Amino acid sequence: MRILGIDPGLATMGWGVLDTNGSKHQLVECGAIITPPDMTMPLRLHNIFTGVKELLISYAPDEIVFEELFFAKNVTTALNVGAARGSALCACAEYGHPIYEYTPMQIKQAVTGYGKADKMQVQQMVKLMLNLPKIIRPDDAADAVAATLTHAASGRMKEQFLMK
Amino acid sequence: MRILGIDPGLATMGWGVLDTNGSKHQLVECGAIITPPDMTMPLRLHNIFTGVKELLISYAPDEIVFEELFFAKNVTTALNVGAARGSALCACAEYGHPIYEYTPMQIKQAVTGYGKADKMQVQQMVKLMLNLPKIIRPDDAADAVAATLTHAASGRMKEQFLMK
Repeated sequence: MRILGIDPGLATMGWGVLDTNGSKHQLVECGAIITPPDMTMPLRLHNIFTGVKELLISYAPDEIVFEELFFAKNVTTALNVGAARGSALCACAEYGHPIYEYTPMQIKQAVTGYGKADKMQVQQMVKLMLNLPKIIRPDDAADAVAATLTHAASGRMKEQFLMK
Repeated sequence: MRILGIDPGLATMGWGVLDTNGSKHQLVECGAIITPPDMTMPLRLHNIFTGVKELLISYAPDEIVFEELFFAKNVTTALNVGAARGSALCACAEYGHPIYEYTPMQIKQAVTGYGKADKMQVQQMVKLMLNLPKIIRPDDAADAVAATLTHAASGRMKEQFLMK
């Protein structure tokens, strides 16, 4: 099974593609969709939309996982990050395969065994689990890959993480 | 010139189409894109995206105006309404015509002459300005039409309201 993971953000949207048979995992590719702040908001959102669409066409994943947005900054930030997430979700809904969502805490728990692990611990465990020569950069790409590993590990429990 | 106005929302996204020569205005059509709460979030966002796309194809507006989101509820609401706005913006960015944005206060000021007017005053003025037999329902459609009237009235000042 092939999983596309997405860590939504406006300036940087991390993504990762994982092949898995449930116990053996192979990282196919990862990266980030970057939209510069001097671009207009509609164009940034559209770049995210087409960027995610291209990932879906290029990698043809069976399932998609999002890291749930979780932060307590101001409402304006939430509106903008929400818009970025919405654009990515639009592209995925058009693709039509199931979409799952995990909270940052569920991902940390699944990958490191500790729900309050820091970013570096997550990155180190992702590197270890996938036999990578070095940690994944940027952070957001590592987070997206961690989300795919979380989904790969959730097995028959995964239905409860379907996005509502 | 033909203007499409959009009042973004997740459950109800109001829209209105206005033809104007700067002084004479004609309402072409208005309505709302409704997405039910029992639909999954990705599908709701995709319905908004395709709904706005259909409006753009059907009415071929020259310019698009959004009512700016402004509210101080919780961050989760902002994330969801932001996602709905993002989906609509995605469709409009793809369309490629300029997108403008006005705050609720600017719209109230332009339509009623008073920035703190209530919903009913705005609806009554929209009815009067467009010679309509009755007020526009739902509220969100009336707000979208009010946004197009605001844009029609902004004339050469409009460039400052281009969405950044």
